[in-house]
Amino acid sequence: MKHALGVIGLGTMGANVARNAARNGVTVAVFNRTAEKVEAFLSVHGKEGAFVGCKSLRALCDALPKPRAILLMVSAGDAVDVVIEELLPLLDSGDILIDGGNSHYRDTERRIERLKKTGIRFVGMGISGGEKGALLGPSMMPGGDEDAVKELLPLLSTMAADDGEGKPCIAYMGAGGAGHFVKMVHNGIEYGVMQLIAESYAILKRTGMGSEKIARTFATWTKGDLASYLMEITVKVLAFKDPQSGSFLVELIKDQAAQKGTGRWTVESALHYGVPIPTITASVEARALSARKEERSQRSKIFPEALLGDAVSIADIDEVRIALEVATLSTYSQGFDLLRIAGATEKWDLPLAEIARIWRGGCIIRSPILEVIQKAYDGTSAEMKSRKQAIIDHFSGARQQAWRRIAAYGIGQGVAIPALASSLAYYDSIRSDRLPQNLIAAQRDFFGAHGYERLDKPGNFHTQWE
Amino acid sequence: MKHALGVIGLGTMGANVARNAARNGVTVAVFNRTAEKVEAFLSVHGKEGAFVGCKSLRALCDALPKPRAILLMVSAGDAVDVVIEELLPLLDSGDILIDGGNSHYRDTERRIERLKKTGIRFVGMGISGGEKGALLGPSMMPGGDEDAVKELLPLLSTMAADDGEGKPCIAYMGAGGAGHFVKMVHNGIEYGVMQLIAESYAILKRTGMGSEKIARTFATWTKGDLASYLMEITVKVLAFKDPQSGSFLVELIKDQAAQKGTGRWTVESALHYGVPIPTITASVEARALSARKEERSQRSKIFPEALLGDAVSIADIDEVRIALEVATLSTYSQGFDLLRIAGATEKWDLPLAEIARIWRGGCIIRSPILEVIQKAYDGTSAEMKSRKQAIIDHFSGARQQAWRRIAAYGIGQGVAIPALASSLAYYDSIRSDRLPQNLIAAQRDFFGAHGYERLDKPGNFHTQWE
Repeated sequence: MKHALGVIGLGTMGANVARNAARNGVTVAVFNRTAEKVEAFLSVHGKEGAFVGCKSLRALCDALPKPRAILLMVSAGDAVDVVIEELLPLLDSGDILIDGGNSHYRDTERRIERLKKTGIRFVGMGISGGEKGALLGPSMMPGGDEDAVKELLPLLSTMAADDGEGKPCIAYMGAGGAGHFVKMVHNGIEYGVMQLIAESYAILKRTGMGSEKIARTFATWTKGDLASYLMEITVKVLAFKDPQSGSFLVELIKDQAAQKGTGRWTVESALHYGVPIPTITASVEARALSARKEERSQRSKIFPEALLGDAVSIADIDEVRIALEVATLSTYSQGFDLLRIAGATEKWDLPLAEIARIWRGGCIIRSPILEVIQKAYDGTSAEMKSRKQAIIDHFSGARQQAWRRIAAYGIGQGVAIPALASSLAYYDSIRSDRLPQNLIAAQRDFFGAHGYERLDKPGNFHTQWE
Repeated sequence: MKHALGVIGLGTMGANVARNAARNGVTVAVFNRTAEKVEAFLSVHGKEGAFVGCKSLRALCDALPKPRAILLMVSAGDAVDVVIEELLPLLDSGDILIDGGNSHYRDTERRIERLKKTGIRFVGMGISGGEKGALLGPSMMPGGDEDAVKELLPLLSTMAADDGEGKPCIAYMGAGGAGHFVKMVHNGIEYGVMQLIAESYAILKRTGMGSEKIARTFATWTKGDLASYLMEITVKVLAFKDPQSGSFLVELIKDQAAQKGTGRWTVESALHYGVPIPTITASVEARALSARKEERSQRSKIFPEALLGDAVSIADIDEVRIALEVATLSTYSQGFDLLRIAGATEKWDLPLAEIARIWRGGCIIRSPILEVIQKAYDGTSAEMKSRKQAIIDHFSGARQQAWRRIAAYGIGQGVAIPALASSLAYYDSIRSDRLPQNLIAAQRDFFGAHGYERLDKPGNFHTQWE
């Protein structure tokens, strides 16, 4: 069967998704608010497949067989609502609207509610892979109308990345905003892993290594557990020379990282569901701190630096690698913890093993770690138990000690390591039978009469402490 | 002039605020939805001052001279709206409603908007001090209608704590929800300081000290810069023995700390305004982690512990004190940073020196540190400069090294120190002229074509990295 798809919005991602579909034999009707963009797109890519350039939304709807499948690739926010309202009178019951942008999952749920009575089926779909992934095969996370997703799967599967075992990186995530929620958490993990890589780079720099040596070191790391997309592009970034000056370009780039919102949303959601994801949180905060560049420069002249000169003044390069591996695994765990608990709260029944599987290809956070996580969530309970042990082993013995030693090195040497330290504090919290919060419970009872529980008997207690 | 005040809600805080007013010569009309509570209150406290027990809101309104001043001490949330709607038909233009609960500042702004056309003047007022402070003198943070606050000041000032220099702990915070915002940040700082004390306690325990010795150690610390209310009650908590068993009660209390929302709101606001407050954030997350007690117990049997046995295996007790002092100062700074930036964004023009001053007495986070902060925000610019230097000196030399050494100890010895490590990462970020976020900016440009800035020339750049 020949598939047809409408694509609205020909920005970087929209254009490449349209080309991806066309290259896979799909007839693609394309529309963009600025009509010249459609012409420019067709003049460059028109011969790559069966495109139908449309000058109006009506033309786009007329060009598609019913039930129509229309993919919105417009900026998240009001623009999505505007397009939906304009499309509504042109659509028929049974048509499928797919929002492929980084919409907030609550907005997706609001839109599903809005469209309920119209018979239009709405799919909120996260797409990861950046510019290149969109073209060559992204990871796709559709949620919302389940029947609609089932009907779309043959079409979308041809466009998706391969998971490394011959299956496409796409699966139904769940009802409502589940698809966009999963994509949001994906981006949260991405924030965490990027920050951890940046901190490892800072630590290696602190030991005296230059960009070239760090690039070479990172290149050897990508042969093991760190064979991730983010590490691969890091190697390329570090090795890239500025054509004008011949210097390593990365060292000329301003040390301030922008953010578009999905990281912050992830942290907000985590607060909402009461799920701590400290490494991701620290990474979002670290970007905000980096943006205060001028203030930092001023303070660097005022605030003293007093470092430690003892046993934590040497960092073993291979231990930096191990610390990065272990902290990265911790970050993925935090993200999956959020998926698990939020999914239960929202009754989405998120398919955790499938999520790990479809993130193994195409997306920004693809990494061998996801195979380990997928297997731990998949299979018989006996299999799962032994596979979970493989994760636990990552935190054992010398590996855990390396993690601690590198964190202590960063702390002793004045390297800001918010993500690395958070991942360790998370580990030491979640594995502790006793934490010191008994003291906090007592303090709260002291000044606010909030009561407390006891270890030795059930019930709620209050003490007159004075 | 004789003052009169209506108090609605006779819970722990409401009853004590009413008693506080009556003891200071104010005629207090009291009402509670459960009428028996009014009777019970009067039978116990009726002779402490001029109370008028009211069986209805109408009776309460009739008992008060116009313009009326009515203080709502009901649970934050819907209950506040319910009472306001019931009161509205009974009030006259010019009357003043004061919400003294922990309302979200956005709710306060919505209520001000709602009451605009009625001529009723609304004041959102944070009250800190817990049960005892409410009775003997709390710190009060009124915001909203400025004229109304001016009229209330003579009455409320008699009830407020002393700031240590003979002035009452009350001041107008600003328009809209400013009062409740400032109280919310107060609570956020409270979360941070409590978590830091708990981590210090955990570190001292890890060195082998018992409750009694920790209590004695903390008692000596309260004679210096740590002479704070929270440290004083910590000493009492640690020294308190369970009457039944004779054991130290704190060790029998379950290690899980609850939270009522203001800490989470502080973190949400910080995300909203883009202001990193990592120590407060980590403290909110730490409470959530502590609440997962059962899961922690299970994991403690599965996840390995591999500690470091080298130079970071000894903690000097006095260095723990210094680390706590410095990290606490960092937490206050983060809170004031949020006040400063949010205040500017919301055009509240928050009086930072006054905020530090009114927190010096009555409230939960009162501490000598606030005098230092007050002075740094107050006075001529030359004075402020030398006073800011006093803050900077807190981070100098051996003090900073002690902070680093104790954090490294916690990390090496498997003590979860999310707040202590965050405070240090914050310091090392905010004082760093260079952070590694240039790498993140480059990664984002690589996979998402997001562009970057350069250090050596202005403009926005994009690179074809491959």
